[in-house]
Amino acid sequence: MWSHSRLLELLNIEHPIIQAGMAGGVTTPELVTAVSNTGGLGTLGAGYMAPEAIRDSIQKIKHLTRSPFGVNVFVPEFPQATENEIRRVNELLEPFRNELGIKAESKPQVDEKLFEKQIMVIKEQQVPVCSFTFGIPDQDIIKDLKNEGIVLIGTATTVEEAVLNEQSGMDIVVAQGSEAGGHRGTFSGSYSKSMIGTMSLIPQVADQVSIPVVAAGGIMDGRGVRASMILGAEGAQLGTAFVTCKESGAKQQHKEAILHTKETETAMTTSFSGKPARGIRNDFIEKMEGYEHELLDYPLQNSMTKGIRKEAAIQDRPEFMSLWSGQSPRLSQNKSAAEIIQSIIFQMEKINR
Amino acid sequence: MWSHSRLLELLNIEHPIIQAGMAGGVTTPELVTAVSNTGGLGTLGAGYMAPEAIRDSIQKIKHLTRSPFGVNVFVPEFPQATENEIRRVNELLEPFRNELGIKAESKPQVDEKLFEKQIMVIKEQQVPVCSFTFGIPDQDIIKDLKNEGIVLIGTATTVEEAVLNEQSGMDIVVAQGSEAGGHRGTFSGSYSKSMIGTMSLIPQVADQVSIPVVAAGGIMDGRGVRASMILGAEGAQLGTAFVTCKESGAKQQHKEAILHTKETETAMTTSFSGKPARGIRNDFIEKMEGYEHELLDYPLQNSMTKGIRKEAAIQDRPEFMSLWSGQSPRLSQNKSAAEIIQSIIFQMEKINR
Repeated sequence: MWSHSRLLELLNIEHPIIQAGMAGGVTTPELVTAVSNTGGLGTLGAGYMAPEAIRDSIQKIKHLTRSPFGVNVFVPEFPQATENEIRRVNELLEPFRNELGIKAESKPQVDEKLFEKQIMVIKEQQVPVCSFTFGIPDQDIIKDLKNEGIVLIGTATTVEEAVLNEQSGMDIVVAQGSEAGGHRGTFSGSYSKSMIGTMSLIPQVADQVSIPVVAAGGIMDGRGVRASMILGAEGAQLGTAFVTCKESGAKQQHKEAILHTKETETAMTTSFSGKPARGIRNDFIEKMEGYEHELLDYPLQNSMTKGIRKEAAIQDRPEFMSLWSGQSPRLSQNKSAAEIIQSIIFQMEKINR
Repeated sequence: MWSHSRLLELLNIEHPIIQAGMAGGVTTPELVTAVSNTGGLGTLGAGYMAPEAIRDSIQKIKHLTRSPFGVNVFVPEFPQATENEIRRVNELLEPFRNELGIKAESKPQVDEKLFEKQIMVIKEQQVPVCSFTFGIPDQDIIKDLKNEGIVLIGTATTVEEAVLNEQSGMDIVVAQGSEAGGHRGTFSGSYSKSMIGTMSLIPQVADQVSIPVVAAGGIMDGRGVRASMILGAEGAQLGTAFVTCKESGAKQQHKEAILHTKETETAMTTSFSGKPARGIRNDFIEKMEGYEHELLDYPLQNSMTKGIRKEAAIQDRPEFMSLWSGQSPRLSQNKSAAEIIQSIIFQMEKINR
């Protein structure tokens, strides 16, 4: 049924399943390679990673698999913040820091050359697939990577963004529906207008681009993957489904939260990073509600909350952690990545019969 | 593939396609019967209709088809509003009334016995199918209608609401995803927590109830119907897809707006009726943003804006009309209802091959 799609050919994989390149330590080399070795595409979520760490992880990945894999990076933006804005955010974050007994960070720290350095490692390591979130990189980067034979995947949350990805030379576009956990990939137009459900987004995107479309958002099992393909996608990208799996590097509290929550318990928030993202509603999200217009832009806000998130995990205080999750947590399972993929394939074959 | 589902048997229809019971004049007897005569289930949107008008429409429907059809009604609520609250809403609505040259309505007018009277007509007319929005009616009504052999369909926007529908004795439950146009069916829990995308909602609901599930929200064609069925539904309910069709009684401006808009141009608003609903963003929605906490509860607010909506249609001012639409307007077509259903069936058969 899906043995000859352009997507499978482009990516040189067996099953139309991409593990999303989630940042923040979820995508261990063990997870990436478990997915790739089972015939899907594992992806290292390198968005926040230093170039040396990316190089290390890629080398581990290459040691653990001969199959293709991807690396996901964040197209950068360079916002500014005044001293006053920073002081105000420190004020807003103080109650959480006090609860955790840590001192205030005085300034956001962002490496403005990070993306360039990440791209250099991706080229140097001849990574088979590179995917982008939060925008489309400059044409010289796109041409450079394509010259190296690297397959490029862009992210879109609207039809217009999908068309921009195609026009820029992306080989594949992930269409991310509003159900998706973690950050919105929106880069053109307002966030609120770009919250399009997967059921609506996929056919409308598929009708307007000719490159292969990959569906994302709320997809956790064979029903979701097969439904996506009927809607016009050639495959699906799953994030939350892999957060809870055994090889995932997600914090235990994060895994437990997903495994025990309901579809009504996620919320969109900008409070952790400055960009809208979907996570399980907790104290941090609720207490920051109403202050979102005072936060710093991404990635400055992300830098400001880093200490809180890290310390909250150490002290086992999930109420202050970013517990990213899509809207289908009732479908989550604590199995190995291979078992998850095999059960997806089994379900899909059953549906096809 | 779908020739033997419980849904088709219960409803005694040929195709797993339900035309949503949209209120406000969209569902003419011609539309309802065009759908039913093509093998789907047409539904009269009787939510706001007086009993005499419902009786008239049902008699016309019976004259035009021998196939089953449904009538949709709204489970009532009885909010109060103080003189001050009403005065404030009149203040907020004044600019629109001035633009249209109409005088202020002084008070909301709501018939608190409307639902009872509607149910009496449904019984008296031996309507084959009755569907409910905004809640679950009392047990005596449910038992009474079931005793008459009327098949009952409830509406849910969360797993919990679907389970409540099943427990109450509903025969079928429509699971309405966040893509859906028009009013949210939410009746238990907060609206914002109940905005679950169709891709997430259907499998999670299907896993938790044993009555047949019908998917709604963003579904406009054979891809959507077939995908819904793979996700665990036995059929789909389409609203926006039928608003633009030839037999629809929707105002011409409403049809045109859907046919020419994009997936990013709808918004959730409570400003027309007091209940959250998805429509195409226009002046009325945008100017009322920020005042939503000052509006009257449904159905009082609906009564307050009625004159504006009616007069705006007459004066061809779509910027003040409620242009309900789901998130897939790019898939809309101005064809006959029969052509829409036939093209859905054709697409579904093509997918199955």
